Amino acid sequence: MARPRRSDDTRALLIEEGAVGLLFNGYHGTGIKQVLDKVGVPKGSFYNYFDSKESFAHAVIEHHSLCVQRNLAEAFTGAPDALTGLRRFFATLTADFVARDFTGGCLIVNLGGELEGSETLRTALSAAWAAWRDGVAGALRTAQAEGTVRADLDAVDLADLLLESWEGAVIRMKIDRTVEPLDKCLRRLLDDYFRP
Amino acid sequence: MARPRRSDDTRALLIEEGAVGLLFNGYHGTGIKQVLDKVGVPKGSFYNYFDSKESFAHAVIEHHSLCVQRNLAEAFTGAPDALTGLRRFFATLTADFVARDFTGGCLIVNLGGELEGSETLRTALSAAWAAWRDGVAGALRTAQAEGTVRADLDAVDLADLLLESWEGAVIRMKIDRTVEPLDKCLRRLLDDYFRP
Repeated sequence: MARPRRSDDTRALLIEEGAVGLLFNGYHGTGIKQVLDKVGVPKGSFYNYFDSKESFAHAVIEHHSLCVQRNLAEAFTGAPDALTGLRRFFATLTADFVARDFTGGCLIVNLGGELEGSETLRTALSAAWAAWRDGVAGALRTAQAEGTVRADLDAVDLADLLLESWEGAVIRMKIDRTVEPLDKCLRRLLDDYFRP
Repeated sequence: MARPRRSDDTRALLIEEGAVGLLFNGYHGTGIKQVLDKVGVPKGSFYNYFDSKESFAHAVIEHHSLCVQRNLAEAFTGAPDALTGLRRFFATLTADFVARDFTGGCLIVNLGGELEGSETLRTALSAAWAAWRDGVAGALRTAQAEGTVRADLDAVDLADLLLESWEGAVIRMKIDRTVEPLDKCLRRLLDDYFRP
């Protein structure tokens, strides 16, 4: 396979550094210059890679969405059943939050809360959430067939409740600096409401 | 009662204008000058009212928290029972979101997602969420005694789940521009999981 061109490498590095900036400092709190400096790219060349800060953020959101899809797929690899895979997925997210001392949280929610007025970014966030929700709904549907999740409620409805509760719990984790909301959310739903 | 001093009026106006700015544009996206201009206060006099942008945002969060407490109390005034009061509270929030065409969302979540590194603002957000949660838990406890909410689960746990799900649904409402996540959240919890 041909080695990616240098410009592709730089674009990928800018997106990865941008994801860190947007996660921790938000859209308005992230300066393009600061991202370029970290990657070691001169300011003038930003527009070789992106049309605008908005299109840069769009690329970051799409990259984040693909990472979530990949993490979800990895959690199911080798898992004995779908519910175990789902628990592994959330356990990995939780471990990452603990490792970062409860800072950062979720890019989709942080930007969803902060951004107003950009249709481009709003639809990118909407698509990212929907893709995640569809992946989790698929896992819940399999778990329903396997008999580990109640089958009398729609898997998409359960996935919506699970992810919306999880995201609210992530915000509380950030402002309370504790893992407790995440653990409670999963116990309340996976171990109680979702039980067959 | 003595009329408030002019400086108290100005401080209150700055806080109200600041709440709008922070809700729609976030902390980093809100300029102090823009808030001062809207209220008609010269830039130099900001520090007569607040020590810093951080202490200004702190005052806005405390003001927002008191508004939530007041709205919660108002929803219960004249309500035939606690569960009806709680439904009225969420119906009022929903109506406000619809009136604003699904923009804005919730100040606590938006700032909770965006802010990092300010212990002052983090603890103010944590206290605001806790006060809201305690109010809702109190209502759910009354509803349990009235027989409209299941009594086998702790009211605080139910309030945590309800508010975290609600806040996740508010973010989805913002990025999907639809009231559906809010309605689904309340139906799923109040009409199903929380039923006696």
